Amino acid sequence: MPASRSAEQFRSDLLSAGILLDTGVDGLYHRSGTFERIARGVEQRASAAGADQHAPLYYFPAIMPRTVFERTDYLKSFPDLIGSIDTFVGDDNDHTALLQIAEAGGDWTEKLTPAEVVMCSAACHPLYPSLTGRIAEGGVRVECQGFVFRHEPSLDPARMQTFRQHEFVYIGEPDGAVAHRDLWLQRGLDVLSGLGLEVEPVVANDPFFGRAGRMLAANQRDTTLKYEIVAPITTDRLTAISSANCHQDHFGAPFGIETSSGSVAHTACIGFGLERITLALLSRYGLDPDGWPAEVRNQLWP
Amino acid sequence: MPASRSAEQFRSDLLSAGILLDTGVDGLYHRSGTFERIARGVEQRASAAGADQHAPLYYFPAIMPRTVFERTDYLKSFPDLIGSIDTFVGDDNDHTALLQIAEAGGDWTEKLTPAEVVMCSAACHPLYPSLTGRIAEGGVRVECQGFVFRHEPSLDPARMQTFRQHEFVYIGEPDGAVAHRDLWLQRGLDVLSGLGLEVEPVVANDPFFGRAGRMLAANQRDTTLKYEIVAPITTDRLTAISSANCHQDHFGAPFGIETSSGSVAHTACIGFGLERITLALLSRYGLDPDGWPAEVRNQLWP
Repeated sequence: MPASRSAEQFRSDLLSAGILLDTGVDGLYHRSGTFERIARGVEQRASAAGADQHAPLYYFPAIMPRTVFERTDYLKSFPDLIGSIDTFVGDDNDHTALLQIAEAGGDWTEKLTPAEVVMCSAACHPLYPSLTGRIAEGGVRVECQGFVFRHEPSLDPARMQTFRQHEFVYIGEPDGAVAHRDLWLQRGLDVLSGLGLEVEPVVANDPFFGRAGRMLAANQRDTTLKYEIVAPITTDRLTAISSANCHQDHFGAPFGIETSSGSVAHTACIGFGLERITLALLSRYGLDPDGWPAEVRNQLWP
Repeated sequence: MPASRSAEQFRSDLLSAGILLDTGVDGLYHRSGTFERIARGVEQRASAAGADQHAPLYYFPAIMPRTVFERTDYLKSFPDLIGSIDTFVGDDNDHTALLQIAEAGGDWTEKLTPAEVVMCSAACHPLYPSLTGRIAEGGVRVECQGFVFRHEPSLDPARMQTFRQHEFVYIGEPDGAVAHRDLWLQRGLDVLSGLGLEVEPVVANDPFFGRAGRMLAANQRDTTLKYEIVAPITTDRLTAISSANCHQDHFGAPFGIETSSGSVAHTACIGFGLERITLALLSRYGLDPDGWPAEVRNQLWP
């Protein structure tokens, strides 16, 4: 069933129903208990789909070490989406100066200092430094979840500034990484279509920044390493609600992760976008989950 | 039962058991699925204790509007704990300059611009602007949860840089605010002692910053508006795992919230610290929740 509402109308309906609350900042919402109950149902469903992976599960904070962020090339590819955190490390006099600037309506952040943490850029980024060194034969599988930050203020409710990715990550041999991506692309399609969502896989088209970004984007399309699973949340566009990505040595190299045979490890991940899948379900079945089909409710809340 | 381990030993035990993972930044951890299951059990227990409040439940993002943060006086009282978020809004040339600084190991954040969001300072702060204006007779009650940021790197596992507060907030008449604080201080003690934790109430002693902060701290002790519920997580100190606070007009005034009779609204809240309560339970009953007493497990996971 195609989406029946524009992004603007869907946002308005979600706000009217109290499922999201406007904070005055585009893309930043308070989520109702109902929204959260659905998101946790989706988490449960995604997690159950990976039970055969016997992967340890970790929840990552919404912030990550700056040194780890700097070893990804996120700053090169997506500088406009990042969040760097500053704090105050001065003394009483510095504090007085800061407050004077703030009271005059000035930019008080000029008195701040970069902290050792930044906003988390992707749910699996904080994982890789924990795997530096040689990993076990057959590779490693990890299930992880985290809030990620994207500074892209938007009135499309499916484009939030902070949202959760629930991932299954593989680290190991190159062919293992491709197999993991392919397994999970199909499994993601199965999970999401099993919830009655009208999904399809497409080659990913990430918003790489600037002139150099146009080449990176063309390269991403040509290599077909990353796929998105898109669904009709609104009539404006199809929205990626999951993605399956083979990173090749993109993380294994900078984080010094080696396979059991000593070559650079390849990695791959599937990410389920909990907020967007929640919105896709609300769009598909209506704003009251108690009225959703039993076969959907049974999968989310078994 | 008093705590049996120092903070250093408890941290080491939690890391060895894989319940927390070290990120290399003090006070920043990856949480295991077990940790998260306990935290959600605590959330459920706290939420159930407030069922009679008939309060709508909201989940707040870990970031909040900068303009809202500026209307609290957090910057005056706790500047050293804040997190301000910068992002990149430049063009290709600015990006090239930024990357050159980064590649030379310099401070690339000098090329960034303050975003319209900051790290959330307290779970109930994002709530107040949604209540600007005149509220209903009898006041308003809201249940809310959010991750908050405190930049205070520490090796005490109970002092994390990012953690959840689960709150019940009252907004209304002055006597209603005091009654809410008193009701929930007792209820918090009941909930936590019902889980077998050795808790006691103490007058709060917040770490106000600097010279002016010494007066604010003395005033906080004298007015006894805020209480903490402390428990023995480690042998180093008693740790606040919840707090019950009457804010008087501290938020009603700057956010323009009026009672039904037109006076400035008073507010009060109880906050359950999900991470710290989880740690208190792990300290009290051991690192394997499957072996905890049935009466505790039944309350967390009914």
